[in-house]
Amino acid sequence: MESDNLNSHSPLTIGARHSLGVISLTEDQIIEYAKMFDPLPFHTSVEDAKKSPFKRLIASGSHVFTLIHRDRWIPLFGNTVIAGLELNNWKFMKPVFADVVISSFVAIMNVKHNPEKKHSVVHWKYEFFDDKDELLQTLDMHVLHKNS
Amino acid sequence: MESDNLNSHSPLTIGARHSLGVISLTEDQIIEYAKMFDPLPFHTSVEDAKKSPFKRLIASGSHVFTLIHRDRWIPLFGNTVIAGLELNNWKFMKPVFADVVISSFVAIMNVKHNPEKKHSVVHWKYEFFDDKDELLQTLDMHVLHKNS
Repeated sequence: MESDNLNSHSPLTIGARHSLGVISLTEDQIIEYAKMFDPLPFHTSVEDAKKSPFKRLIASGSHVFTLIHRDRWIPLFGNTVIAGLELNNWKFMKPVFADVVISSFVAIMNVKHNPEKKHSVVHWKYEFFDDKDELLQTLDMHVLHKNS
Repeated sequence: MESDNLNSHSPLTIGARHSLGVISLTEDQIIEYAKMFDPLPFHTSVEDAKKSPFKRLIASGSHVFTLIHRDRWIPLFGNTVIAGLELNNWKFMKPVFADVVISSFVAIMNVKHNPEKKHSVVHWKYEFFDDKDELLQTLDMHVLHKNS
């Protein structure tokens, strides 16, 4: 179940699954992000990465989610956010190499309405796939939203 | 059980609990980080935050962990990291306000050695406390380390 008609007031419906589009990271982007927040040599140096078990540069685990959340999720769903509550099952199943086209999806697994307080706890599930449709990462996120 | 004698070759011992020191975030730091990665109005604007349920600016959920991990954890334990595997139970129990002194700790909950592959899966547990010793956030992290 996918939505083609998203806007800044997208309803929060259990079972909805939204495409958040595609993204890819250049070597320079991987290095720049990792130098800021995850300065391990296999994220910040092509040469050092060649000597690592992955044999080439890999993106910091948080990089793809951070960008997709900022550029795709917040514009769609950020307007009702009161607070983030919890992240779970953020699994780094496969390394994220440079220039791979990554497809991102987010699904609404559950919505617990609290009519008295006029807010809801929404359970979001992110999935990130590579260009062979293999799962790179997943992440469960519980967010407190205002009832619109 | 705390360690006062850490260095870049700290052993990975089940039950060890390490202080990662204290940190606090200014309003400007909260706003700058949130503009980069979590641009919600109650993270990026003092004025907008006054109208939020928290009545004042709060830090992006990932901010404290991101800085402590980069500046305190990686210098101590980064030298044996092969890859991050999983994050769990990242709970945002209380809002992080500006200028609060936050104490950070990381404990080693489990170590699964694989002698054949010469690596270990280490289960780390972060805890962040405010200046009243109330728990602000926790986070479980599974990391693959080289056996030293």
